[in-house]
Amino acid sequence: MSQKKQLRLGAFLPDAGHHVAAWRHPQAQADGGLNIQHYTQLAQTAERGKFDMVFLADGLAVWDRGQGKEAFSRSGQFSVHFEPLTLLSALSVVTKKIGLVATASTTYEEPFHLARKFASLDYLSGGRAGWNVVTSAAEAAAKNFSQEEHLQHALRYERATEFLEVVTKLWDSWEDDALIRDKESGLYFHPDKLHIPNHKGKHFSVRGPLNVARPVQGYPVIVQAGSSEAGQELAARTAEVIFTAQQTLKEAQAFYASVKGRLAKYGRSPENLKIMPGVFPIIGSTEQEAKEKYQQLQDLIHPSVGVGLLSGLTGHDLSSYPLDGPLPDLADTNGGKSRLQLIKDLAQRENLTIRQLYLWIAGARGHRTILGTPEQIADQLEEWFLNDGADGFNIMPPWLPGGLDEFVDFVIPELQRRGLFRTEYEGQTLREHLGLPRPVNQFTANAATRELVSVLT
Amino acid sequence: MSQKKQLRLGAFLPDAGHHVAAWRHPQAQADGGLNIQHYTQLAQTAERGKFDMVFLADGLAVWDRGQGKEAFSRSGQFSVHFEPLTLLSALSVVTKKIGLVATASTTYEEPFHLARKFASLDYLSGGRAGWNVVTSAAEAAAKNFSQEEHLQHALRYERATEFLEVVTKLWDSWEDDALIRDKESGLYFHPDKLHIPNHKGKHFSVRGPLNVARPVQGYPVIVQAGSSEAGQELAARTAEVIFTAQQTLKEAQAFYASVKGRLAKYGRSPENLKIMPGVFPIIGSTEQEAKEKYQQLQDLIHPSVGVGLLSGLTGHDLSSYPLDGPLPDLADTNGGKSRLQLIKDLAQRENLTIRQLYLWIAGARGHRTILGTPEQIADQLEEWFLNDGADGFNIMPPWLPGGLDEFVDFVIPELQRRGLFRTEYEGQTLREHLGLPRPVNQFTANAATRELVSVLT
Repeated sequence: MSQKKQLRLGAFLPDAGHHVAAWRHPQAQADGGLNIQHYTQLAQTAERGKFDMVFLADGLAVWDRGQGKEAFSRSGQFSVHFEPLTLLSALSVVTKKIGLVATASTTYEEPFHLARKFASLDYLSGGRAGWNVVTSAAEAAAKNFSQEEHLQHALRYERATEFLEVVTKLWDSWEDDALIRDKESGLYFHPDKLHIPNHKGKHFSVRGPLNVARPVQGYPVIVQAGSSEAGQELAARTAEVIFTAQQTLKEAQAFYASVKGRLAKYGRSPENLKIMPGVFPIIGSTEQEAKEKYQQLQDLIHPSVGVGLLSGLTGHDLSSYPLDGPLPDLADTNGGKSRLQLIKDLAQRENLTIRQLYLWIAGARGHRTILGTPEQIADQLEEWFLNDGADGFNIMPPWLPGGLDEFVDFVIPELQRRGLFRTEYEGQTLREHLGLPRPVNQFTANAATRELVSVLT
Repeated sequence: MSQKKQLRLGAFLPDAGHHVAAWRHPQAQADGGLNIQHYTQLAQTAERGKFDMVFLADGLAVWDRGQGKEAFSRSGQFSVHFEPLTLLSALSVVTKKIGLVATASTTYEEPFHLARKFASLDYLSGGRAGWNVVTSAAEAAAKNFSQEEHLQHALRYERATEFLEVVTKLWDSWEDDALIRDKESGLYFHPDKLHIPNHKGKHFSVRGPLNVARPVQGYPVIVQAGSSEAGQELAARTAEVIFTAQQTLKEAQAFYASVKGRLAKYGRSPENLKIMPGVFPIIGSTEQEAKEKYQQLQDLIHPSVGVGLLSGLTGHDLSSYPLDGPLPDLADTNGGKSRLQLIKDLAQRENLTIRQLYLWIAGARGHRTILGTPEQIADQLEEWFLNDGADGFNIMPPWLPGGLDEFVDFVIPELQRRGLFRTEYEGQTLREHLGLPRPVNQFTANAATRELVSVLT
């Protein structure tokens, strides 16, 4: 095993793949979103590739973008799919080592429910759970939860911050060794090792304790995906992995420096937050073959699907603008701020028409597309990794299952040859894979601090 | 295969077993609540026994009953366990036929989340999901969800009724054959077969559609456990299985007649609602052996645990009353009405002291205890089944895994010999096991009705 710094890899696995026309690919699993055999195969392939984790996105609404049913009916590939926590629970028993990361929203959930479900997944999987904390960017979600309007961006982040505070208190309700279950004496748990959080804050009042023991990992790994100013701050305070979209090494380095620079004020060390940009790889035995594979997918995009995708990502209905004209000036919305800015920057930098823009983002949806031979792809990953642009990558296969198979069969071995990636799992938990510390229980930590203070005064 | 009417069986599987001291049994799995190997074994044993379903209870708070940590620490056996939907998702991939029923509360959940999670479980399991609809009896739950007080009983049932209405609308968002995923034409779904529920009611406004296709079973099977007047009415309107606690055949028959008699006004047929009382079986090769087995468990109950159990079930702190005195007069609470009444009736009927009362209910917690040889147990089940006291039973093993093993190895074969229970699964889905019809989509039903009306006028 090489002593080199190791990169981290996530396998981001939506339905039939990331490309907006993925499901139409001849070998794609068109019904993948609701097919457990499909997901079992994907998770086992990712584990064969020694990925750190499977990563599942989520949304709380079918995203019809007001484009009319006819156009929408062509782009429904992400409309129906398993709910991530139930799916990962199922996958926990058909895998042994790989981490299992689900997205869940702090805006439309209750801390008690989420603390519990992720703790449950952590026990089901023997310490492999992770939670990608989002605040939900889709206005449509509000309408599914008896609310007239989506919570404002700033309030969403305020709520998210308190939500995480409550959740970690609940995870700490029971000390690691509280549950002794001594049949002889009849003592089920040690009474001094149960803590009632009794949280009272602006957004939540939660008494606790949690009805699950302290998770195997202390806390499931906290992942975060928002890249806005508020998102970076929340991440610096609480996240252990950031999944982000960066197009160029320069941008990636700036983001990397900005986030890592915020850690010190929270008393955290830079290596305890892993930055993993998304990467959309098109792999060929030659560069030409990779280009042809990409073109094959691009040719499957119906224009109404392309415009619909762009409308959804920007939060603006673009269907009335000329396909071959420029992107109009778009105002900020109450949705995901960083994503809108990224698309506007891209259009300006590359001087793209609406059609060119949707073709550009149809695959990676704002993430970085890498196209070439396994060596070329490894070169590009290595460059970012060695130059403070990334601690690893979230791999977004164009279509599934084939796009993941190719990455595992051709790119992973190349990364392993270079000593950049593990050839075997060293540990058992997701924290161990990522090299993250196990969190100390805040109630015992506080008790120790109180004790110290009383000794000193 | 016999042509006789067949009884239905659920396997109700909490942690280390139903008896309050189950975890102290020498062969019990004391950490069963958070042990996936334990639950895998249980589910596979129940499937070997051809049970209709695994049944999981749930609560949204650790139930400390204000009895003090010291006493509570002896009775914590139901304090920590898997969250049921994540657990059943995991069990869906290690079983093939058995139904998977999870309890979830309409009081502290959102219809969109629950509609989605149960639909997801139904896809993971190939049509084996069921939802036990409860309104949560524990006051403690409110404090975990930022509410000062538990919702009043009547309002809880009003909310539950609307909650179910919203959930079924969401399940009907997509017609069964809506998702055509035609790679050639690029049409993912048929636009006319998507319906936007757009529900607006007193408790909920939910636009929809759901982001899961219509469940394999149309709707997961709806189970209900409340036996109060409001509970019976909600069940008659919406439930397909009732899990109930009945002590005597006479009571069981009265309940059976009362519930079945309410179905006609909702246009439902009596056979489309299965009534399944809970049964707590203690099995011996002789009656004497069964009695000794029961006594072995009873001897493991610490008095503080017994009183705590009784306090929890009645909603009244009984720790200050003499153990060997009578149950004091107890006022109605805002918790589960039918359970309190059942306990008061039992104490009066049998003239029990507090100690005798907790010993009586320590095992079955208000459900029926049957003690004897496999033949004696089969006799008692058969008697209720053939005399309109029950359509089947929810079996509550005293301790786990052994109590379930014994039922499957000794009682099931006896029921099969009598032609009362299947020797092989006839169908694939939980609905098929229970002989329940697949619900018609309310949106297509309405369309057909509208069409008929327009033809006739």
